[in-house]
Amino acid sequence: MSSNPRITVVSTGSELTSGRSYDTNSAWIANELFGLGFSVEKFIVLPDDPVLIRKELESCFAGASAENPVLIVMTGGLGPTEDDFTLEIVCELTDSVPVRDEKAYSRLQALYRLRGRSFEEALTTAIRQVSIPSKAKVLENKVGIAPGFWSEVRPGAYLACMPGVPAEMTEMFRKELSPKISETFRSQELTSDFRFIWGMSESLFQSEFISNSSMIKEGKAIWGVAAKRGYIRVTYQSPNRDIVSQLISETEGKYKELCTGDVFEELPALLLKHKLTLGTAESCTGGLVAKLLTDRAGSSDYFMGSVVSYSNSLKEAILGVKSSSLESFGAVSEEVAKEMAENAVNVLGTDLAISLTGIAGPGGGTQTKKVGTLYIGVHIKGKGTTVRGLYFPFSRESFRDAAATTALYLLYDRLRKEV
Amino acid sequence: MSSNPRITVVSTGSELTSGRSYDTNSAWIANELFGLGFSVEKFIVLPDDPVLIRKELESCFAGASAENPVLIVMTGGLGPTEDDFTLEIVCELTDSVPVRDEKAYSRLQALYRLRGRSFEEALTTAIRQVSIPSKAKVLENKVGIAPGFWSEVRPGAYLACMPGVPAEMTEMFRKELSPKISETFRSQELTSDFRFIWGMSESLFQSEFISNSSMIKEGKAIWGVAAKRGYIRVTYQSPNRDIVSQLISETEGKYKELCTGDVFEELPALLLKHKLTLGTAESCTGGLVAKLLTDRAGSSDYFMGSVVSYSNSLKEAILGVKSSSLESFGAVSEEVAKEMAENAVNVLGTDLAISLTGIAGPGGGTQTKKVGTLYIGVHIKGKGTTVRGLYFPFSRESFRDAAATTALYLLYDRLRKEV
Repeated sequence: MSSNPRITVVSTGSELTSGRSYDTNSAWIANELFGLGFSVEKFIVLPDDPVLIRKELESCFAGASAENPVLIVMTGGLGPTEDDFTLEIVCELTDSVPVRDEKAYSRLQALYRLRGRSFEEALTTAIRQVSIPSKAKVLENKVGIAPGFWSEVRPGAYLACMPGVPAEMTEMFRKELSPKISETFRSQELTSDFRFIWGMSESLFQSEFISNSSMIKEGKAIWGVAAKRGYIRVTYQSPNRDIVSQLISETEGKYKELCTGDVFEELPALLLKHKLTLGTAESCTGGLVAKLLTDRAGSSDYFMGSVVSYSNSLKEAILGVKSSSLESFGAVSEEVAKEMAENAVNVLGTDLAISLTGIAGPGGGTQTKKVGTLYIGVHIKGKGTTVRGLYFPFSRESFRDAAATTALYLLYDRLRKEV
Repeated sequence: MSSNPRITVVSTGSELTSGRSYDTNSAWIANELFGLGFSVEKFIVLPDDPVLIRKELESCFAGASAENPVLIVMTGGLGPTEDDFTLEIVCELTDSVPVRDEKAYSRLQALYRLRGRSFEEALTTAIRQVSIPSKAKVLENKVGIAPGFWSEVRPGAYLACMPGVPAEMTEMFRKELSPKISETFRSQELTSDFRFIWGMSESLFQSEFISNSSMIKEGKAIWGVAAKRGYIRVTYQSPNRDIVSQLISETEGKYKELCTGDVFEELPALLLKHKLTLGTAESCTGGLVAKLLTDRAGSSDYFMGSVVSYSNSLKEAILGVKSSSLESFGAVSEEVAKEMAENAVNVLGTDLAISLTGIAGPGGGTQTKKVGTLYIGVHIKGKGTTVRGLYFPFSRESFRDAAATTALYLLYDRLRKEV
């Protein structure tokens, strides 16, 4: 087995370097590799330019040897169009010729037959994508058409090529590439764990917690913090499992109810466990909380629906908010958030409801209610309503994201204490 | 003025290379640079490792001269925590010392005063971030705290450093950096235009259109195509404006109503122009269409609200879908989509409504109604309802995204023809 490789993730596609699309593959791959015990040294994103790509691959492989292996995980450029060059480049690098992968070819034929006549004529163009370099090993594509490949270009210089389509790449990585990587390289065996801390800033966390931690000062663990919308995600890593556990429990001890695991995983689990149903009544988030909840397959087991009352008239007409409350307190108020949450359980027929009303901006603020003002209501049938007033003076997008994630946290926090 | 530079966009942050966060800054920057007439050669993403970052900057600057300038646009590493190294690295590269930027320092003090007591203790940590290298020029941060900077490291080697927080970076790029780039470099003056083509695949487009275009064969224009969810985005570029116009009009001629501009911009403009109000009735998309519509500031001028009837009982209870329709045809049917759209205008009090019902998967499919089945209804008051049956056999996430964008397209397409 080779020792721990230096890893670079390369994404190709002129739609990426021109800014028309985002590269989400590299981050996903890095995260998976981390799970396997490997860390990535850098990401490179290149246009569909065979000269640049080849130059970059050679520069990444510089210094690779059996003792100091280099692994490049590359995505993109395997498609059917004339600007897809990966096959050609890897054939040059490995002194190979393109050979048709028969399994992929059969899948392609079947798919085009299924799609019907208009696609028949595209078959000649599409056929390019079912070949791999003769000296490479195939990585089967179980979701789409183009197969990937794995090649030891020269001793210690490993190259994996996968399609850029995320659904195809992720399946190929897990089923085909991940076993190859694990059998080829020795991993670091680091333990890692994380917590979310809600409503916390990176600097405050560092000055309050990190700078007072002797284990971190002594270098026994590495820490990282990522600012998310509504929370920070704190990660600890160490070769010693006990040190990670101790840091996690110190974090929980200090931040108490602000500290959670992954609420996006744990909230659905709690709802299922207690057989509770949920709905939302949303104003400023415009359906985002419902969207987040239904991103998960199987969410229909606990999520019933939502009333997005963006206009005031719908807050009255569908949610039954009193017009006197809207007049006396305004739509963005504790009282209206409370009525929205309480009435939502009746309108939606659920056990639980979350309500949100706020000013996302950039317009709509007043002297007394500034842009960034937000009220989140949580109603649990039989256990009453709580309303939290918050102030998120961020951009519209950040405000909405932070509002939506915080609403899920507030519900989760009540559920873990009260049910 | 210098000639057109080779441009690399560098993002730093261990949260990026470990896959805990996505780098969206590089794509945004590339897109803006394209608008200024520059194209980016590559993106590099690096961890918070000063040795790696410095090595990479030096390697990007290799060969830079006044005649062949290189521009690096870097984001990240300007924050308050100990893993933020940009200031230190650029001081080394430019033989500078850190100097406090007084304007940024005042802003920091004001912010901490505003936020109240609990932040006072974080001040020493936070203060690091208001310095810049003595030989660099400040790029003011009008949204957050940390200023950016611009430096000609040596003749022809230009480096711009900006914060990694998107809202701060985008404002800084537009107001501070973009003028500096335009006054320093000569741009290419390429004309570019694009169209969306709905329900189209990249290969089919290439075989039907691109391979038959003489202007593209003759190299008079460059083309690019990006597969989005629900559509492809086709771009043409040429130094000659007429050639771009002709390609656009040939594309429109061939694809007719499938061809649009940016629907996400044009639909709101149409609604405002005709003073029409809109609501949605959503099942499988779970609020995503409402979320997309309310992403835009000012959407309350035309978007009233939504009923997310994820469960069948809510389709009856709130939207008034007939129970006989649900029984005879099933929730995922043309008839139910039609009733949802027609009743939504009454329930929501709008002129227009979009409805969606479908099977996002991975579960929930049957022999007769497979995962991927979708019906989208569009009702225009006084002009009746149309329902489109579609089949999107994709992943759950792709299905939902494609369903939501296609719903906006179907409404837009009717509005441009009928009002």
